[in-house]
Amino acid sequence: MIATSKNFDVVVIGGGPGGYAAALYGASAGLSVCVVEKEKVGGTCLHRGCIPAKEFLESAAVFRAVESAKEFGVLTTPPSIDFSITQNRKQRVVDQLWKGLSGLMKGRKIEIIEGFGAYIGDGKVEIDGGEIVTGDSIILAAGSVPRTIPGFEIDGEVIITSDEVLAMSELPESVAIIGGGAIGCEFASMMSDLGVKVTILEAMPTLLAGCDKDVADVVVRSFRKRGIAMHTGVAVTGHAPGEKGTNLFFGDGSSVHVDKVIVSVGRRPFSEKLLGGNSSVNLDQRGFVQTDEYMRTSEEGVFAIGDLVATAQLAHVGFAEAIVAIKTILGERTIPVDYVNVPWCIYTHPEVAFAGLTEEAARNAGYDVIVKKDPFGGNSRARIIGETEGVVKVVAEKRADGSAGRILGVHMAGPWVTEQLGMGYLAVNWEATAEEIAHFIQPHPTLSETFGETVIALTGRGLHVG
Amino acid sequence: MIATSKNFDVVVIGGGPGGYAAALYGASAGLSVCVVEKEKVGGTCLHRGCIPAKEFLESAAVFRAVESAKEFGVLTTPPSIDFSITQNRKQRVVDQLWKGLSGLMKGRKIEIIEGFGAYIGDGKVEIDGGEIVTGDSIILAAGSVPRTIPGFEIDGEVIITSDEVLAMSELPESVAIIGGGAIGCEFASMMSDLGVKVTILEAMPTLLAGCDKDVADVVVRSFRKRGIAMHTGVAVTGHAPGEKGTNLFFGDGSSVHVDKVIVSVGRRPFSEKLLGGNSSVNLDQRGFVQTDEYMRTSEEGVFAIGDLVATAQLAHVGFAEAIVAIKTILGERTIPVDYVNVPWCIYTHPEVAFAGLTEEAARNAGYDVIVKKDPFGGNSRARIIGETEGVVKVVAEKRADGSAGRILGVHMAGPWVTEQLGMGYLAVNWEATAEEIAHFIQPHPTLSETFGETVIALTGRGLHVG
Repeated sequence: MIATSKNFDVVVIGGGPGGYAAALYGASAGLSVCVVEKEKVGGTCLHRGCIPAKEFLESAAVFRAVESAKEFGVLTTPPSIDFSITQNRKQRVVDQLWKGLSGLMKGRKIEIIEGFGAYIGDGKVEIDGGEIVTGDSIILAAGSVPRTIPGFEIDGEVIITSDEVLAMSELPESVAIIGGGAIGCEFASMMSDLGVKVTILEAMPTLLAGCDKDVADVVVRSFRKRGIAMHTGVAVTGHAPGEKGTNLFFGDGSSVHVDKVIVSVGRRPFSEKLLGGNSSVNLDQRGFVQTDEYMRTSEEGVFAIGDLVATAQLAHVGFAEAIVAIKTILGERTIPVDYVNVPWCIYTHPEVAFAGLTEEAARNAGYDVIVKKDPFGGNSRARIIGETEGVVKVVAEKRADGSAGRILGVHMAGPWVTEQLGMGYLAVNWEATAEEIAHFIQPHPTLSETFGETVIALTGRGLHVG
Repeated sequence: MIATSKNFDVVVIGGGPGGYAAALYGASAGLSVCVVEKEKVGGTCLHRGCIPAKEFLESAAVFRAVESAKEFGVLTTPPSIDFSITQNRKQRVVDQLWKGLSGLMKGRKIEIIEGFGAYIGDGKVEIDGGEIVTGDSIILAAGSVPRTIPGFEIDGEVIITSDEVLAMSELPESVAIIGGGAIGCEFASMMSDLGVKVTILEAMPTLLAGCDKDVADVVVRSFRKRGIAMHTGVAVTGHAPGEKGTNLFFGDGSSVHVDKVIVSVGRRPFSEKLLGGNSSVNLDQRGFVQTDEYMRTSEEGVFAIGDLVATAQLAHVGFAEAIVAIKTILGERTIPVDYVNVPWCIYTHPEVAFAGLTEEAARNAGYDVIVKKDPFGGNSRARIIGETEGVVKVVAEKRADGSAGRILGVHMAGPWVTEQLGMGYLAVNWEATAEEIAHFIQPHPTLSETFGETVIALTGRGLHVG
């Protein structure tokens, strides 16, 4: 038996959102914590995911703002993009946030060990096949990596994943994006706004499959207007590289020639070398670590959180799972994450945000529902900022007397909806009724009034919506 | 006795936010409603207040976006402003909203009578001293007009109020703003961003007197950095017109020469010709109509709402009061407006939003409090959009064991905080505890995370804030 160099209350494998949140929350509660991270703390989200993607999307927003500046009386020349500056700014923001996070972790006396951690049982984590640290509790938070598909080997040049997109310092002239989920649509939105010719190929019948149909439709309509080609319900069958770029084949003999193909078909858990030795942690068939609702794996004292488990792959779900794990370790009363009602945000233009059941899911779950929608076109602030695409839709349970009861789902597409979800999210999670929420006031003039108006309409007394 | 031409369930005097909300809500509930409005429905808010002010502030936001575009990789020339375009866009947006509102009211069969309405008792409203309509109930919603101060007669050229500011088609080179409240600060922010040299003169010891100090300080620091001159605790003593503009005297012999002086010292109720004949509606000494918490005046069947009563002069408070009045007319159970906890939004750059008690007010009310603040500098989305000025501050009741109990106040300054207040506002109004709110998830990466983080910090387990 190898002598262990150091023991901690908690050893965390992986320094992404799940891992660093577990470390920070644990340290706040007085636990000694070690994080083993193979690269930089912050994980995919900070270095190759949400943050860089949103940074690029912000450049797209600035580009649009300059294009429409004249309408507001602000005179300037039409914009052009120097994507190398965009890339540098992205890196600067990421580096600042990374330094902030590292400093915070050091300030909390969290030990960060750089290396590839594997859990080998008996509370032992082996680093790069050598050094061992032990923990009274272990939290597995190794995250995920992009999925790929047969026939599209990632070469980093023509066939790429989100990893390469986010490292680009020059935009291609044209791209095909395989996969019309949240990430694929965010790339499509950003690139199209910056002048790239974009084609989206999606096997499912619609883009943004998990979203309420009315909300996904807002994005699809906007994409169509902006010239993004969308093919849904099609399989990609292969590609034939040409002199420049490649010819991509899809559906029944269709093809498109593009400079680059972005494979954006989801992410798989990064679990292949995570476990060894005496570990009795179970994986499912797809490689996800199996846990109960308190994030406990099949081995006592070992927890798993974040993209490594088969729950929503969202950084903030990782944060929430980290807190559940740490509270469970501390023996405190814990409420498990309510996965049906977590908030979702998609940063396309227009943005999407939602929590709770879609209309379809509510009906499928057997609810009799009542639904109201209010488009942003009637919202005064939307008109002021010149962004009127979008809708707020609220799904409520229909009572026997036909009136609206509990709010089951809040779905938004439009300007800054990612910052407007809070009240609706709380309403869904507190099982509030339409009447209870309708009583509350939305400040005027705000975009948030559209949510308020939709809820008032559910009570049958809409000021603007019937 | 004059024959009455027409009788309604409700006659509303004034077609501003209070009046039109009463009409729309009443019509939704099946009441026949008549609105008497001397100009256009929409009132001060739509035509000479919030909406045009925010429209100008949006042009300032676009101007800033163009100025900083290069940082994002978006290449363009430095901006200049053609304020006549800004003014035209403002008018277009106002006209669209006005048409929308008019159409909505017509669609609900609300009768709109153009004319100056006076309530003369016995359910009678006299229009322009002639025609009379009667209502089973009367709602007074005549609104407010800008206050003025002695020695500063409004000439519409050099000495102006918000009415003239919002009609400008050219920006002056320099202005002094008398009054550093919300409206004065919004004008200061907008004009300074668009290149006007701005001086604010305020009699109180601080700007934005009703705001929590930490939040007001964010705005003051930003104003100082942007070169806005601020003199607080000073009285203005007079002015001496020069060849161009005027010399304004303030404090102990100080003076400043400016092109224009904006008098922004609040608004007074527009009640002087509102009542006559047999009316037994009481006004207070300042001219506000006196009401109880159900908006009932001293005369049975007559209600008053909006800026005409001595409550917060906010359009959305007018909406809420309208609903209380209509529900009371309908004989429905009604919860009066909780004025301490209504939401406030100020659209300066950076924005301000809050609900509930400030730290000072909570202490003055006898609460033992615990306070946490989280600056936006650590927020990833704030870094992404390049707007890191600001803070979220949450004031909670301190329990006997030192832990944080009920959330008493939520105070925000920073980017888009006017759209982020929903969850905090609901927390304050539902008397939620810090623990109850800390359980909930903020989507990542959002600006709203800063509120979530502040609340988690109140539970002693801050991820970023100690």
